[in-house]
Amino acid sequence: MGLIVQKFGGTSVADAERIKAAARRVTETYDAGNKVIVVVSARGQTTDELIELANEIIDKPSTREMDMLLSTGEQVSIALMAMAIHALGYPAISFTGGQVGIVTDSFHTKARIRNINADRIRKELDNGSIVIVAGFQGIDVNENITTLGRGGSDTTAVALASILHADRCDIFTDVDGIYTADPRKVPNARKLNKISYDEILELASLGAQVMHSRSIEFAKKYNVPLYVRSSFNNSEGTLICKEIDDMENIVVSGATVSKNDAKITIRSIPDVPGQAAKIFHEIAKKNINVDMIIQNASVEGRADVTFTVPRSDLKNALETAEKIKKDLWAMEVLYDDKIAKLSVVGIGMRSHCGVAEKMFSILAEEKINIQMISTSEIKISCIIDEAHAERALNAVHKIFGLNLVKNEVAAKV
Amino acid sequence: MGLIVQKFGGTSVADAERIKAAARRVTETYDAGNKVIVVVSARGQTTDELIELANEIIDKPSTREMDMLLSTGEQVSIALMAMAIHALGYPAISFTGGQVGIVTDSFHTKARIRNINADRIRKELDNGSIVIVAGFQGIDVNENITTLGRGGSDTTAVALASILHADRCDIFTDVDGIYTADPRKVPNARKLNKISYDEILELASLGAQVMHSRSIEFAKKYNVPLYVRSSFNNSEGTLICKEIDDMENIVVSGATVSKNDAKITIRSIPDVPGQAAKIFHEIAKKNINVDMIIQNASVEGRADVTFTVPRSDLKNALETAEKIKKDLWAMEVLYDDKIAKLSVVGIGMRSHCGVAEKMFSILAEEKINIQMISTSEIKISCIIDEAHAERALNAVHKIFGLNLVKNEVAAKV
Repeated sequence: MGLIVQKFGGTSVADAERIKAAARRVTETYDAGNKVIVVVSARGQTTDELIELANEIIDKPSTREMDMLLSTGEQVSIALMAMAIHALGYPAISFTGGQVGIVTDSFHTKARIRNINADRIRKELDNGSIVIVAGFQGIDVNENITTLGRGGSDTTAVALASILHADRCDIFTDVDGIYTADPRKVPNARKLNKISYDEILELASLGAQVMHSRSIEFAKKYNVPLYVRSSFNNSEGTLICKEIDDMENIVVSGATVSKNDAKITIRSIPDVPGQAAKIFHEIAKKNINVDMIIQNASVEGRADVTFTVPRSDLKNALETAEKIKKDLWAMEVLYDDKIAKLSVVGIGMRSHCGVAEKMFSILAEEKINIQMISTSEIKISCIIDEAHAERALNAVHKIFGLNLVKNEVAAKV
Repeated sequence: MGLIVQKFGGTSVADAERIKAAARRVTETYDAGNKVIVVVSARGQTTDELIELANEIIDKPSTREMDMLLSTGEQVSIALMAMAIHALGYPAISFTGGQVGIVTDSFHTKARIRNINADRIRKELDNGSIVIVAGFQGIDVNENITTLGRGGSDTTAVALASILHADRCDIFTDVDGIYTADPRKVPNARKLNKISYDEILELASLGAQVMHSRSIEFAKKYNVPLYVRSSFNNSEGTLICKEIDDMENIVVSGATVSKNDAKITIRSIPDVPGQAAKIFHEIAKKNINVDMIIQNASVEGRADVTFTVPRSDLKNALETAEKIKKDLWAMEVLYDDKIAKLSVVGIGMRSHCGVAEKMFSILAEEKINIQMISTSEIKISCIIDEAHAERALNAVHKIFGLNLVKNEVAAKV
């Protein structure tokens, strides 16, 4: 008995059969005595088709008109979802983002929600209706249609769940839940029953398969429990929630490896104060996100600075680095885009020591060289050669016992 | 120099190329120094595809949700049209029906416009923008999306033209204009340069190929000149406007034949007052539209009543007629659904006599029997055997010289 928000992604509403299946999920939840809000994305390939249509007409469409165009995808989905729920004999009513007062700023294609006036939703819920809301969209103060960018439907679902104090927000998707590692890379990866917001945020590359980090941050801020589950079967999913006591016992919750970074080294920079600041000031001006940074000890008054950037920004970053090299009287700029970032994440790291040592040891045993290291309170990341990525991931996954059930994991460390 | 509304139908915006072509039409009008409002329909088959999607889910969709679904069709078109105009280097901004304050009643799928708050359109026009508005749609007072039913985009265009006192409303479509008769049936049918609202309303079956009568009535009421023209070529179209002096010289403007009616005869009704009233009261209760009615002279205290109804309502009307037969002690009910209605229309009929005689003579000459006759101030219609429909149309078209240029027509009578 409560209020539950259920979000269905594009693959979960791709065709009539899937919409009907989703509608059955919704009515089961309603039959269990809950008030239900349904948030839907555009059907399957709709968004891509609309983008293609736009590209046939103009190279760089106005972002306002893109939002006008793309927001129709979710509008089709909500109408069909309402019809599917009606077909099962239940009351349902659909709303666009604008109709339920999801007001955003005016940054078209990547708008941020400013406030939600949920009066209309409350009224319809009180009337006994299942309320269906278009994900991904809102309106600005001048009633221009806006969209929320990547992961936007998740953001809508989480925002509604938080403002309406929902008991849970179900994220129905095409995977079963969150795994200890990517099951395509680690055959014995295990599905997690529960994971904390912080861990999933650090496991970005795992989480991104399921939810955009922006929505998770939002859920964390408003403490909305997220339940990630498959829309195609009834198996248990993964609950993403705030840290609870028994989580502390899990030292490592998951491992991940990503190949999205490239490494740049500016060699032999005269070691005087302010040099690093200059470098990263210039890089930031180009809107490039720097991840890891190391500076080696100064030798003969000169130091090397190495940093990683998204591979897609490498060209741009290299141009900037070449410019900086001249300004700083550095010697040369080197780069490597054949690297991988291996990470292990777990809340228990805070209270258990030896995790880093264990990770470095197993990599050494596997004869995998560590090029860079960065750590947070609950994460350890190493940059390694891309060629060893999957092997390293499997080794780490095994040494931390991630394939085993949780209590055993805890016991092992 | 003025304000022009330009409406493009579904075939005129069916794909990227056609949208670009339409955009060029718009910018030419803008370059000529006009303010331009563009009204667009959903692309080509979009509406049918959306209806099919709904039918895959439920037999009788809620009309509110159908409106939610179908209104996306025009929304896609306006965004693409704005992009196409941008691609030509002109300022343009698109709006949904709701965004420009087209407020309707709440009769979903066949809503009527109640009022339009055109402030936002005026502001954007004053800013120098080409304003693009989604046809066919509005919102009710509770911001539910509504659609205007058949011919809805024309209605939007005409409504905007009237409220903004536009100098002209262009209706771009897939035909060249209005013809003296259907060119598929009468090979030498001629395109009219000008025709009055009243004539086009009487020539419903001709007009319906181009515009729904509702929009024409609207245009007539607010005296908005409509210019029907092809979106595929630059040939002159047909101006639909209020009656002007030189129109009086044209006795017959067009001829048309339709096969949409069926004839019912209730035979041998005791001829006492109130019988006809009873019949048509019952028929009206079934929401069936009766067109022509004749009652023959009473023979031995009994009369026959014959009337026509839409063929699609025949079954329903026959059931009602059988019931009436018993109530009225009439003898039998006969019907014929193999009939055609041949009509000639012209404002000049008011001041010229001999039109009916000429029509009847040519049909007699062609040995075509006239079953029923009805006339209005500017129209004569005859019910004939369906088998002779095209032959009769061609004969009438020829005898009134409709293939000839207008002055000659006038001279002939």
